[in-house]
Amino acid sequence: MTLHRWMPQPVSRGWPDDLVDGTEAGAKAVHDLVQRALALRAGAAPRQAHGKRVAAIFLNPSLRTRTSLCAACHALGVHASVLNPGTDMWRMEMGEGVVMDGDAAEHVRDAVGVLAQMHDVIAIRAFATLNDRKADLADKTLTAFRGASAVPVVNLESALYHPMQGFADVATWQHHLGPDLRGKRLTLTWAPHPKALPAAVANQVLISAAQQGMEVTVAHPEGFDLEPSIMGRAKGLASHAGGAVRVTHNQKEGLAGAQVVVAKSWSGVSGYSDRTEEATRRAAAADWCVDDTAMAHTADAGFMHCLPVRRNVVATDSVMDGPNSWVQETAGLRLWTAMAFFERLLAS
Amino acid sequence: MTLHRWMPQPVSRGWPDDLVDGTEAGAKAVHDLVQRALALRAGAAPRQAHGKRVAAIFLNPSLRTRTSLCAACHALGVHASVLNPGTDMWRMEMGEGVVMDGDAAEHVRDAVGVLAQMHDVIAIRAFATLNDRKADLADKTLTAFRGASAVPVVNLESALYHPMQGFADVATWQHHLGPDLRGKRLTLTWAPHPKALPAAVANQVLISAAQQGMEVTVAHPEGFDLEPSIMGRAKGLASHAGGAVRVTHNQKEGLAGAQVVVAKSWSGVSGYSDRTEEATRRAAAADWCVDDTAMAHTADAGFMHCLPVRRNVVATDSVMDGPNSWVQETAGLRLWTAMAFFERLLAS
Amino acid sequence: MTLHRWMPQPVSRGWPDDLVDGTEAGAKAVHDLVQRALALRAGAAPRQAHGKRVAAIFLNPSLRTRTSLCAACHALGVHASVLNPGTDMWRMEMGEGVVMDGDAAEHVRDAVGVLAQMHDVIAIRAFATLNDRKADLADKTLTAFRGASAVPVVNLESALYHPMQGFADVATWQHHLGPDLRGKRLTLTWAPHPKALPAAVANQVLISAAQQGMEVTVAHPEGFDLEPSIMGRAKGLASHAGGAVRVTHNQKEGLAGAQVVVAKSWSGVSGYSDRTEEATRRAAAADWCVDDTAMAHTADAGFMHCLPVRRNVVATDSVMDGPNSWVQETAGLRLWTAMAFFERLLAS
Repeated sequence: MTLHRWMPQPVSRGWPDDLVDGTEAGAKAVHDLVQRALALRAGAAPRQAHGKRVAAIFLNPSLRTRTSLCAACHALGVHASVLNPGTDMWRMEMGEGVVMDGDAAEHVRDAVGVLAQMHDVIAIRAFATLNDRKADLADKTLTAFRGASAVPVVNLESALYHPMQGFADVATWQHHLGPDLRGKRLTLTWAPHPKALPAAVANQVLISAAQQGMEVTVAHPEGFDLEPSIMGRAKGLASHAGGAVRVTHNQKEGLAGAQVVVAKSWSGVSGYSDRTEEATRRAAAADWCVDDTAMAHTADAGFMHCLPVRRNVVATDSVMDGPNSWVQETAGLRLWTAMAFFERLLAS
Repeated sequence: MTLHRWMPQPVSRGWPDDLVDGTEAGAKAVHDLVQRALALRAGAAPRQAHGKRVAAIFLNPSLRTRTSLCAACHALGVHASVLNPGTDMWRMEMGEGVVMDGDAAEHVRDAVGVLAQMHDVIAIRAFATLNDRKADLADKTLTAFRGASAVPVVNLESALYHPMQGFADVATWQHHLGPDLRGKRLTLTWAPHPKALPAAVANQVLISAAQQGMEVTVAHPEGFDLEPSIMGRAKGLASHAGGAVRVTHNQKEGLAGAQVVVAKSWSGVSGYSDRTEEATRRAAAADWCVDDTAMAHTADAGFMHCLPVRRNVVATDSVMDGPNSWVQETAGLRLWTAMAFFERLLAS
Repeated sequence: MTLHRWMPQPVSRGWPDDLVDGTEAGAKAVHDLVQRALALRAGAAPRQAHGKRVAAIFLNPSLRTRTSLCAACHALGVHASVLNPGTDMWRMEMGEGVVMDGDAAEHVRDAVGVLAQMHDVIAIRAFATLNDRKADLADKTLTAFRGASAVPVVNLESALYHPMQGFADVATWQHHLGPDLRGKRLTLTWAPHPKALPAAVANQVLISAAQQGMEVTVAHPEGFDLEPSIMGRAKGLASHAGGAVRVTHNQKEGLAGAQVVVAKSWSGVSGYSDRTEEATRRAAAADWCVDDTAMAHTADAGFMHCLPVRRNVVATDSVMDGPNSWVQETAGLRLWTAMAFFERLLAS
């Protein structure tokens, strides 16, 4: 959120500035939000925010985020407008000072400015490009939206983070492992995939777990490093909260003793320099698929994946549908954590 | 609706299990639902179901079904989320045990599982493939949804049936012919069309009319047989209710004495084996277009078509817009029957 | 709105017949509507119209119109169904008496008839073709909708007019120049653009300003004449209200003394006969881009554009973001004028 001269003053709000990665308000705020989500799931009545309006722009597909946002807003009496640029509306120019004689019909500054005139919150999904590391590290589209909006901007998965997923993850951990997550052992394991994927969800798991003081192990094959700056942030958050972050290139070792396993594919930093080579490395690591044998190394861990998942590539049917799968529960918690977040943002 | 171990228990509901073809609850339930729809149209206030949520997934285009579902839900205070896979969300894999290294990013089990976590009902439109008879006869996509959902599944037109259309048809018949439809004479006539079409609407007319005990005549050119198993079901339902089902390949004879004419094109069983031959037969039957001369054979029958209709191919403008056309009225009843159905399902 | 025999009687309504260009109800009605919009913006509570339903069909992209309509309806308790033909629903045939054996699956008469059965208002966006002047002058799609609808039709930008934009424009003028606009000096200036554009917004500015009795100057390069019949209408409206309409081909002269500048590109009448020649003329007039030098000729005028705008082609960043830009305010007023309009139409 940036206030230019031509922007109106924003409404007061229950979350500090924009929602970028979910850590903005501190560990305690996430803890409280998650407890509220669990209470809403148990039947507590959501506070109403009639007359408030949310605009949600999806530059990429969405099932869970789209439906949970819309249903959560409806439960609060809030109007949600969903927009799909390229079909519903015009393509946007993100650059400053551009002579707009090309394909993009509208500048992000104008489109977002208008949405901010009509809505109390702007929510935006904009995945990583995977070909421009600098743009992805700067979270270019989310940053452009934040710069153009006079009202809070909510990240519905950017190049770098997916905080709404993070809230549902923390809710799942607290539900199964107790409200104090300090010292609980979580393993984030890389997984195979037919396509190169962004690391936003992996980054989010990392910092969400670190902020809650968990003992985090990141397991991935060599060459699939997450961004060093984000690893550094996670280590700082963990250290502050009494936890730790470590990395291993051995999946079996990484899973040993875990209480929670989160599986996710990502293409990593070196993928930017050579996509062909990354695809070769990725194909060679097909045995990182999470199966019952892999899960047997854990301390009877719960298994998580943000979905959508490639079954029998990322994880086997038996793990996905097994007694330790928390996958569907986390997805269900997307609704209740979204409701708790927008209640806090708009009903306060 | 199938309950796997990992599924939550469903909410109680006012319709037995899923809505597949509309006959599940018996002839009396349809009769009562239709009378309620007519009362709602006359101004009765719908019972409210605040806090309930419906997810509607359209794998094919929709005008009437989409708008009537959304408007009906709004009138009940129910939230409806409309999803268009392929644009809004990811393509789904329907097969069990598949190694998902192809195009489909998400398994129907996971997508539907998630939707069932967040919604009280899942509604799905999935037309026939017209190239795989076995898959169409098994109603593959609807069946996959039912197998994956812990909440009731509502059919918004599948390969085989279109029960929401069926309710509006019965409402139209009851409005014009009286609440007791036993012995009333309905003719379902095949009609020409530039494209091969599924038989879901034709099947639905057949079983809806049969269940209400009507005297049903199916008129179609040779080679356009409906599925024998569905013809058998219709005959059983008619026999149980005191009606009958007969077939003729002579349109004039089929229309004689009819009190209701329903026109619809379908490609029929033999179309699966040879599309080119089917197109030739179809083109040769262009004189099955329903015009004033054809309607003159009836007992001053009302004319119906589910829409969309190819004017002057399926039926002439003069029939579509003539004094005996019930086409628009049936379309309008889509709203009130949808409202009555979801009221029964969610407000009870 | 046309009542055929087979159509139900429409509901009573607070606006005369359809909304085509916004002048239907007279200058006083627009004045009152705009004052109500400014009151709603200042915090007045909108009157409720629970149970009413609006169908909005977008044949072209939309950001402001789409979101303002949906948010305005939500604020009134009205249900809005948004449809995108070609993706959500079937392609429509507009011609009368056509044998529909081509691509279009549904006739506008049937589709609109159905929507009118289920909704209290039908809103439609259908831009000019730019290749068939006769069709555009007849406002073919809007006219087909009006002919097929038994309920009021609301123009969300047609080939000729954009009345919802017009209301927001008048609201902006009244807010800045006072409620009595007679004699206020407005300049509508043509602007460069990489593509040939319809003149609907330009026409709308012209007649909205003329009806309020403003002194209107239209400045455009030679060869970019607006439709003579619309110029004639504007002159008649202005004359009736005590204002005037004049044309100049010199931008500097046109801007001199203006209190409001509205910039817009359009391809004009002669573009229909030769698109290549029009593109050449358009490219040659790149210096009509509105910059600070151009604005310096005005009487410290406010600058307006309906958006989306090509920055640094139509107008420079410094004008768009400068202290005299009313662009964002007008966009924001789209919400409040839409709310005032639908309140008047549905809550009365």
